[in-house]
Amino acid sequence: MNEFELIDRLRPGLPGNDTTLVGAGDDCAVLDPGLPGRWLLFKTDAVVEGIHFEPSTDPARIGHKALARCLSDVAAMAGTPTHAVITLALPSPFDPARVEGIYAGLNALAARHRVAIVGGETTTNPERLLISVALLGTVPRGRCPLRSGARAGDVLLVTGTLGGAVRSGRHLDFEPRLEEARWLADQFEVHALIDLSDGLARDLRQILKASGVGAELWAEAIPISPAARTEPGARAAAGWPAPLVAALTDGEDFELLFTLPATRAGEVEAAWAARFDRLPLSRIGRIRAEPGLVVRDRDGVRPLTLDGYVHFQQP
Amino acid sequence: MNEFELIDRLRPGLPGNDTTLVGAGDDCAVLDPGLPGRWLLFKTDAVVEGIHFEPSTDPARIGHKALARCLSDVAAMAGTPTHAVITLALPSPFDPARVEGIYAGLNALAARHRVAIVGGETTTNPERLLISVALLGTVPRGRCPLRSGARAGDVLLVTGTLGGAVRSGRHLDFEPRLEEARWLADQFEVHALIDLSDGLARDLRQILKASGVGAELWAEAIPISPAARTEPGARAAAGWPAPLVAALTDGEDFELLFTLPATRAGEVEAAWAARFDRLPLSRIGRIRAEPGLVVRDRDGVRPLTLDGYVHFQQP
Repeated sequence: MNEFELIDRLRPGLPGNDTTLVGAGDDCAVLDPGLPGRWLLFKTDAVVEGIHFEPSTDPARIGHKALARCLSDVAAMAGTPTHAVITLALPSPFDPARVEGIYAGLNALAARHRVAIVGGETTTNPERLLISVALLGTVPRGRCPLRSGARAGDVLLVTGTLGGAVRSGRHLDFEPRLEEARWLADQFEVHALIDLSDGLARDLRQILKASGVGAELWAEAIPISPAARTEPGARAAAGWPAPLVAALTDGEDFELLFTLPATRAGEVEAAWAARFDRLPLSRIGRIRAEPGLVVRDRDGVRPLTLDGYVHFQQP
Repeated sequence: MNEFELIDRLRPGLPGNDTTLVGAGDDCAVLDPGLPGRWLLFKTDAVVEGIHFEPSTDPARIGHKALARCLSDVAAMAGTPTHAVITLALPSPFDPARVEGIYAGLNALAARHRVAIVGGETTTNPERLLISVALLGTVPRGRCPLRSGARAGDVLLVTGTLGGAVRSGRHLDFEPRLEEARWLADQFEVHALIDLSDGLARDLRQILKASGVGAELWAEAIPISPAARTEPGARAAAGWPAPLVAALTDGEDFELLFTLPATRAGEVEAAWAARFDRLPLSRIGRIRAEPGLVVRDRDGVRPLTLDGYVHFQQP
């Protein structure tokens, strides 16, 4: 059983209540406690030494990454983050300078997005550092793109370039696409939106599953990052070249993947280029009514059997 | 440097914003995002295998404890919990039945208090299980007792009986005092309120420090739990008998400690006895203007030098 199968098994048993609009299963929970004009967003995420960063990683970059991952989930709801609480589980003995470095990274990113850090629990995790962040945010009522909104005929768009984020170190420094996501949802009818944490193939499948649709990706349109362009040939798989495999399956890109009506695609692209001239936006495929995920390249169309990054896997 | 000194060092650097009324340093953060008639409460807490529970502990009791600790912090603000998100850091390989057991405990307690579990992140912590819970709640505007509200002349009251919670197993099964705290804050002018997680001596010092006051405890009035009554004599310290040492310093009681004007004490006690006839309420001392914590017994008054439970300590 892997992480995703475990979550699928647990989800139906979770208790709900009448102020919960979206529970576990999207990038954030969506709550309606009665805030005029807005819904609340609620999310938690964690990073673990040896898995999401190394013992030698600069502490400020660890802190940055821990919070940025949660901020990226709020971006995936086109929301605005507001308040965070931090659980720091520290090896014993702990190094106070390392903890202060982590908080330097957390605080700088939080301040840049006007997020208040309003609580910090510390505990012991003898063998390795673990940081769990919980984040609150808001989104205008009725303006929150979910994973479940994709429709046949939508185009698929992605920001930035994909692949190699861990190898290049970008996973420690990425800037969550908060402003971009809010701009998109403000201006256009975004049907479905997700942030890419587990790799394009796997995260796109989350949209397809939640929306009950399929998709066709266009191999030559997928934006491959500079790091992924130098992937060693050994990563080639299922007939795909190594750089494309990296762009399809590497985790931790934290770019936005979204769908909207094909009729609006040209307009979005033009407005995007005028507004965010340093961040590419690529039209990489389309949503189809037929289930499944296929890739089209110059040789034709075939099913995508590659999968993305799995945080843990069990035989 | 210990946990508390570390937190004191980090707190001044945390970013705030204009919707934060109380940040790190009380039982919960208090937020004002604009909810009519109510403030939001926000809290995180974690339990770790080998520290807060044992590898052999029944998984349902682990889940219960993980959430109950956070609920107790909401009780300490006289609030109502509403939504939780869970980070589960699992040893590798993990045991699906153990995870389902943990969620059985979490879900049962959450459902009893109408708390929705709206998100669950899973990750790997190879050597030991760790559960971090983040909790949202609400409290009526202006009706949230803080640690900082104690005044000279107040009486000190405590619910239940104290000491031996880890030895007796009560730390795995306790019921957070949510109803009792709301009833108190609704009916009476509660000046300061905290839940006892680190031991009476240490948690009372948090109230004294936040309020800028001192206190006198009455040794013979402190309610000693059945488990603490059988403490071995070796735990006697500084001239105090072992059961009293346990009641003063053992952690994880999760009872309510609060202060209110001495003139109202008799009325509170009478109303309490009528409303919660199965849970003792004890008047255990008074708040003084002079700083410091002293204990009065039949031999006189002397400073309390014992401290409470420290989650981790560093030379």
